[in-house]
Amino acid sequence: MTAQDKLKSRIGNGLHICVGLDSDIKKIPKHLLSYDDPVLEFNRLLIENTYKEVCAYKINTAFYESSGIDGLRTMEETIKIIPNDILIIGDAKRGDIGNTSRKYAQSIYDCFKFDSTTLHPYMGYDSISPFLEYKDKINFILALTSNPGSNDFEKLQSDNKYIYEHVIKKCSEWNTNKNIGIVFGATNPDELKNAIDDFGNLFVLLPGVGAQGGDLEKIVSTFEKKKNINYIINVSRAIIYSDSEEEFHLHAKNKLIEYNEQIFNILKRYY
Amino acid sequence: MTAQDKLKSRIGNGLHICVGLDSDIKKIPKHLLSYDDPVLEFNRLLIENTYKEVCAYKINTAFYESSGIDGLRTMEETIKIIPNDILIIGDAKRGDIGNTSRKYAQSIYDCFKFDSTTLHPYMGYDSISPFLEYKDKINFILALTSNPGSNDFEKLQSDNKYIYEHVIKKCSEWNTNKNIGIVFGATNPDELKNAIDDFGNLFVLLPGVGAQGGDLEKIVSTFEKKKNINYIINVSRAIIYSDSEEEFHLHAKNKLIEYNEQIFNILKRYY
Repeated sequence: MTAQDKLKSRIGNGLHICVGLDSDIKKIPKHLLSYDDPVLEFNRLLIENTYKEVCAYKINTAFYESSGIDGLRTMEETIKIIPNDILIIGDAKRGDIGNTSRKYAQSIYDCFKFDSTTLHPYMGYDSISPFLEYKDKINFILALTSNPGSNDFEKLQSDNKYIYEHVIKKCSEWNTNKNIGIVFGATNPDELKNAIDDFGNLFVLLPGVGAQGGDLEKIVSTFEKKKNINYIINVSRAIIYSDSEEEFHLHAKNKLIEYNEQIFNILKRYY
Repeated sequence: MTAQDKLKSRIGNGLHICVGLDSDIKKIPKHLLSYDDPVLEFNRLLIENTYKEVCAYKINTAFYESSGIDGLRTMEETIKIIPNDILIIGDAKRGDIGNTSRKYAQSIYDCFKFDSTTLHPYMGYDSISPFLEYKDKINFILALTSNPGSNDFEKLQSDNKYIYEHVIKKCSEWNTNKNIGIVFGATNPDELKNAIDDFGNLFVLLPGVGAQGGDLEKIVSTFEKKKNINYIINVSRAIIYSDSEEEFHLHAKNKLIEYNEQIFNILKRYY
């Protein structure tokens, strides 16, 4: 099943929330610490309780790399637990010269079996093209991110356009295999309104709802008004750490359902 | 020993060549394939034969991640083989929002024990600052890279300056802990001449000599004319794959010595 098909079957049913498994051993419920691999158990319970209602899972590689090789083994096992028909984004934010990016693509797609990844645009086309050869995957390229530092370079202006707008334009041009997406921070609803007409067929991954304060209502309305359903809204901390007791996974499930209901209520206005 | 001290003791002796261990099982000499870990044996022989003459080693993480967890174990073992007084750059090109970049910094500095790393500037200050808290490490931020794609975004102009010049300016401002460097592709000698006066105390890592065609003579002269010795020239493929026979490591050593002699001959003009 291609990444595109996995994604479309979920967003076609109005499921747009991606759960970010930014799982940190210091933050998971204490009762899990008696397990051999507490983070894996945390992820397993979250996945078992949310897989029917998610659009995708996003695994930020940093949270696993920070425990070295043991952490990467947890990541590998987590990927195996996720049902085959659900998109798994390896949020790795890679990017290097061509022959090196090819190695990163092998790591992410051939070794770890992710369906999708995230990439830095800074080094330009040949840093991205080895990923684009994987036609059945989705490559999300950073456009405008959700963090304060997005002001430093992404919002510099060149030729009356922000740098992130140049990135979006290039992504659209490079999207001949229909396997490119962009990352657009949900903390920037006004910029989203201004940029959305240039998105074309690009998939859009929007982090920043939840702990970072992005506005779900504004984001969803902006897309639905344009009849663009190719958006994925990532929520990490606000779902996976919504509770720290024994039944944390049920709280996480309820939180996810709450987000989905919020979205359904907005969708009703447009259908 | 701090990263800064390791580096200064080598460049103070006129050693500016960093050997890039971009080790690929498909390219290493065939006779090594009988070893349990052929890439580790390849690296071991290279290190044993070059460590007296190098400025630093650069390990591009992509070449190890592409073999998954086994590859990362090889990377971990390679780091242990390198003598303690030599700078090891983990060329990982990371960068994410603050709380995530902190995890990457833990992976690179606390788990894998690198002395230094490379970072994408795209997401701005908070994507870099967790690395800057490690005062005894050196963080090289991508400015102008050596690949064709550097034209796509790095060379866009904003406010009469290239984006990479904005990056250099910010790096200089952020360098209060004297633990920032920049990556500047050796394939851009003219741009180097124009930018060098803005480098201040920043360390400079220059990839692109060797397989990518960067001009050693021009690069070294540009720095020495300015009495700036804080430069590291990386050579990967042209040294490590200079020969594929049993004595490949001696060829690699000779190639490194040739590069060093070329540099000494240029230095003579300035001292």
